[in-house]
Parts: sequence; C-alpha cells; structure tokens
Amino acid sequence: MKNDPIKLKTKIIETFGTPCTVVDLDVVDSNIAIAQARCDDARVANRPHIKTHKSPYFTKQQINAGAKGITCQKLGEAQVMADAGISDIIIATNLLGAARSGKLAALQAKTPVKVCADNPVTLSEYAKAAADANTPIEVLIECETGQQRAGVESPDEALQLAKIIKDNAMLKFAGLLFYPSLDGWPRTQHFFDELKLGLNDMGLTADIVSTGGTPNFINIGQLNGATEHRAGTCIFNDRMMIAAGVATLKDCAVHVYTSVVSRANDQRGILDAGSKTFTSDTGGLDGFGYILEHPTAQIHKFSEEHGILDLSNCTNKPAIGDVVRVVPNHVCVAVNMVDQLVAVRGGDVVDVIPVSARGMLV
Amino acid sequence: MKNDPIKLKTKIIETFGTPCTVVDLDVVDSNIAIAQARCDDARVANRPHIKTHKSPYFTKQQINAGAKGITCQKLGEAQVMADAGISDIIIATNLLGAARSGKLAALQAKTPVKVCADNPVTLSEYAKAAADANTPIEVLIECETGQQRAGVESPDEALQLAKIIKDNAMLKFAGLLFYPSLDGWPRTQHFFDELKLGLNDMGLTADIVSTGGTPNFINIGQLNGATEHRAGTCIFNDRMMIAAGVATLKDCAVHVYTSVVSRANDQRGILDAGSKTFTSDTGGLDGFGYILEHPTAQIHKFSEEHGILDLSNCTNKPAIGDVVRVVPNHVCVAVNMVDQLVAVRGGDVVDVIPVSARGMLV
Repeated sequence: MKNDPIKLKTKIIETFGTPCTVVDLDVVDSNIAIAQARCDDARVANRPHIKTHKSPYFTKQQINAGAKGITCQKLGEAQVMADAGISDIIIATNLLGAARSGKLAALQAKTPVKVCADNPVTLSEYAKAAADANTPIEVLIECETGQQRAGVESPDEALQLAKIIKDNAMLKFAGLLFYPSLDGWPRTQHFFDELKLGLNDMGLTADIVSTGGTPNFINIGQLNGATEHRAGTCIFNDRMMIAAGVATLKDCAVHVYTSVVSRANDQRGILDAGSKTFTSDTGGLDGFGYILEHPTAQIHKFSEEHGILDLSNCTNKPAIGDVVRVVPNHVCVAVNMVDQLVAVRGGDVVDVIPVSARGMLV
Repeated sequence: MKNDPIKLKTKIIETFGTPCTVVDLDVVDSNIAIAQARCDDARVANRPHIKTHKSPYFTKQQINAGAKGITCQKLGEAQVMADAGISDIIIATNLLGAARSGKLAALQAKTPVKVCADNPVTLSEYAKAAADANTPIEVLIECETGQQRAGVESPDEALQLAKIIKDNAMLKFAGLLFYPSLDGWPRTQHFFDELKLGLNDMGLTADIVSTGGTPNFINIGQLNGATEHRAGTCIFNDRMMIAAGVATLKDCAVHVYTSVVSRANDQRGILDAGSKTFTSDTGGLDGFGYILEHPTAQIHKFSEEHGILDLSNCTNKPAIGDVVRVVPNHVCVAVNMVDQLVAVRGGDVVDVIPVSARGMLV
C-alpha cells in the first residue's frame, strides 16, 4: 500500500478505529536529521527535548542520529528515560515539588542527572536530594531573557545562585540555561557576557550554555558561547511550527485520523476527536487543527470527544463516514493525550509505540 | 491529621511530590448523594456520565447510591466499565469510527450496550456490529435542541431514523437522547411531543428519554416525558460548575496540589502545573483555575508544565516552596490527564485510584 493514503486510512480504521493518533516514521527520520544538521551547522551540540514524544523509542533514534543527550521537563520523564538506559539528562525546570517527594534522590542515586534552578529554595532541595543519594548533583542556572517564564532576571541574581552552588559540596555548577524569545538573542548575549565575567571572577566555568526552542532554530548559533541547543517539537512539528516558519505541512509527522460522524446540517459537521484528543491549545491560531483533505473546513469548537466543523467556507464538504487527517495545532500536548501512537512507514502500519512517560503525576 | 490542610499538604508532597491531582472522597460522597437526590426529586432515573472520572471505583459508588446505569462517551470507556461488571451502559455518541474497527461488535457480544445515532451511516455500522456480535443492539436517536453539537435537528429526521431502526432486525429502538441548552427546554418539549406522536403512529415507544448535563440540574424535571438524566461533572464539580450556579467551592472534590517553584519577580510567580496537568480549557472563565490559598493570584498563562501567576492584584503573595491547591476550571479534562488520583478522606490520604479509561484511542 506504499503511499496510498486511502488504503492506509482503511487499514487504520479497520484495525484501530478512530480517533487514532498516527506518527509517520519516514517524516520523523527526516525531522531528526534536519534538527541534527541545524545543530551541527551552528556548531552546538543537540540535546533534544523529549517532552514532545515522551518515548524511549524516539530518544534512541535521536541519540543514534548524533544527539549528545536529552532534555526533560518532568522528573517522571527522566525516570522513564533513565530506565531505558539514557544517561546524559538535563531536567530543565525548578524540580522543587518533585524533589521534596524523595524521588529526585532515588533517581540521582541510580542515574545522576543535571537539574536547573532559579532560586535558593530549589537549590536547597537539590542539595538535600544529592545528600540523600550520596552523589553531588550538577546544577544549571536558568536565566530569563524574554519569554517571561522561569529564570533569574539579572546576571547578579545568577551570580548569587552560583555562589550558593559553589559553597555547597553536594552541588556542582554545570552551566546556564537560556530560552531566549525570538527577538531576545542580543539581550541574551549581553546577559551571558556579563554573567560569564562574574563567573570567571568566582573561578567558575559554564561548561553547558544551552539555548532552546524549535522556533529558535531560525536563531540557532547566534549566541556566542552557546554549547548546545534543546528543541522538542521539531521531531514531529505541527501547525504552530508551520506558523513559526520552521516547518511545512510535509514535515508534520503526526496526524490524528478522525471520522466525520455527523453532518448536523449544511454548515456543520462533527468529528469524533475533540479536546480529549487534541487538548484546547490553539497556539494563537484560528481553529483547532488543519484538515488535510478539507483545508477550508474549520475546526472551530471542541467538546471533549467532538470537533465541531464550520463548513460555511468549505466548497468540498466532507460526508458522514469520511476519515480525515488533522495536523494538530500543538503536537506536544496532543501526543500527551494517548497511551500509544500508531506508527506508519512507507505508507503502511508498522508498529504501535508507547508514549511511556505520560500520565505521571510528577 | 483530621482536617489539617497543612499536615495533609506535607504528607502529599512528601509521598507523591507535586503536581498532584487529589480527590476528596468525603466531598465525592456528598456530591453523589446530591445528584441522586436531584434525580429522585425530579422523578427521573439517574444515569451518570462517567467521562468525568473514568474509573470503575466511582461508577460503583454511583450505582450503589441509586444510579440506574451509566453513560459513556467513548467505546474504550464502555469496555473498561463492562470489564468491571457494569451492565446498563449507554454510549452517548455516533460511534461510527469505533464501530468500524470491530471493537463495538466485540463489546456487544460480551456486554450488550445501548448506542446513539443521528444519521443512517452510523445506523448501518451499528447493524453490522450487531450482526457480527449476533446480538441486536439497542439504539437511541440523538436530538439537537440548542447545544449545536450532534443530533437530528427536526422530529421528521428522527422519524426517518426510527423507521430504519424499526425495519432492521439487528437494531432495536430504545429511545431518545437530548442535551438541551439551558434555555432550550421548552423547545425540547415541543420537539419531543411532536416526535412522540410520530413514533406512536409507527408503533414505537421511547422507553428511554434522556436529558443531560450538570448545569441542567437547574432544569431537571422540566421535560414532561423524560425518564432519566445523565450528568457527569457533578461528581467532582469545578470552577465552571460554580460559575453555572450548580456548585460552590466546598462541593469541588478535585484539587491540584502544586508548588510555587519560582518567583521571577514581584508580579510573577510560577507553579509546577501547566497545560499538561490542567489542559488549556478555560470554560470561558478568566484564568486557568482558582487558588484556594490566594484567590487574587491569577493563573493567567500556561506552558506545558508551568502555570504563570499574575500577582499584581495579590496582596498576600505566595512564596517559593509554598504548596497551593487549585480548583480546575474544567475537572473532566484535568482528571483525564493523569493515570491516577490521590484520594483523601477525613483529611488523610487513604487510596490511589486509577483513572482506568483514559489515554485510549477509541
């Protein structure tokens, strides 16, 4: 059935039914290679963020393609990856609430990880976890340069944390974590340059200087001194990445196969996939996904298991029973909704891949 | 630790870490009793929608409290409930894409279910599944009276479907499914009355006439001829149900325990729970949840694992390391994000309850 989408649809619906979240491994191969090449070209190491796929299956492919290590956003993700034999892991967040459960110490005793902090309270929890694990823990300082999320907001704040790290035998300074906004790279350079001088004065070196984000592939390499980049979404891509100019439709590896289950009237249709399949993330876009077969049909509203189609601008309207493929607005959250992805290659179903690190509390 | 929220927070974070989605079983008991009483008072049977909890644990409590049967929205939910011994199940949707996989026939052969349709294509799939299962299947006709979701839009359309059902030996007419909008009950009455006459002429009786929705508790009993009501959210309640006037804060059984992991600056704080814990459903409300300890702190933005707090109107600002409890805007989708709920009773942790029917494709 090589590249016959109609036969593939029939196979998917007869084997799995709909909705069905499907990943095209040929596209994934290409996306992994593109991401690696972008990092290679910019002379920074590739440390993909696995929050997008949450699966050791894809992590191993990324490592095999040249990735230096991985980035996680949750302790549970790191646990799953460590269990799968991945050893070079940054957990890119203040792991305060997870550390207090004793689970960070348990992981650290088994597979030492690198963690991030932007405040002394988190550092204190890391020191306790490291002491419990009897293994000093490597810490990166998270720096805020435009996204308005976590991160210290000045080099001075970062230096205060660096001093705490330096003075605590259970903490080892490992470097700096940046997630510049798209226009925040010059500001990031100033921040880093000033901070680097201060670190030098303290006798510290940032072995890792990490930038992040798939949209930031358009800026990769622009931070002089960066040693690695962490991007997540690029392995699958989505409508947001198309809007950001870093992917095209053919780079989108994940499609939700969904049936038109009702045509309430001439202007309205209903898909059997809603917010419990895609989530309600719009990513700032109009509509909740792009329907390959009916680009002018807008998924304008979700209920939990239904996508409501506005067909008023649609000339070629879908019929009840049609199976359509939808590119999600935000693939990271859509993949996180299902226990497994149906995998296709060469136009045929070849595997079912567990999304192992999803559904966990911490 | 009876009713000492500080001790309970300490136990939860030290046992599970944060974020942690917690259900208070005392509140659940009360909510189940209230829903049953509302149905009893209106003289309609109670057929709770289990999409909110997706767990046989709670289904059994609802049955024990007097529920006649249950409502599901997915085939996978019905499979899990049938496996747990629940026998009276309505799947309240056009199960077209799931039926074509053969999974409906497999379920029907084991535990006969009632299904819903608003079109002939779905009916045709039901007839095939019933034939494959060698067991006629009971079908309700879904009728649209205000929500603008699925459902036939006129009594005439419903009668056309009723005729198809009547003429097919594998299909049995079981009744009518309504989900009136809040102001759509008089319209629903007209629709039903006209349809009932037509059904009588065909020699058919709607044994089940179902109304739906927790917000519709304010209207329950207003449809003359209704035999049962299906409500889901009322078992847990949430910020949307408070806004709808059918619950208060003390009726909200599910809280996400989350840590303040960063205080970027005076106006901004960060929780360790974001869209992968709550989803991005706003339910039309400002902010993404209600923080019990800091009602004036607004969760104004999510990233996947972070909730960004706007503290500009907050006099008593949370500190890094504080554990706070958040009432989700939409509890049905929040519960669907985790594999298990931590259960408390009498102010102490007593159980961990699997959310068994989540993460499934169909």
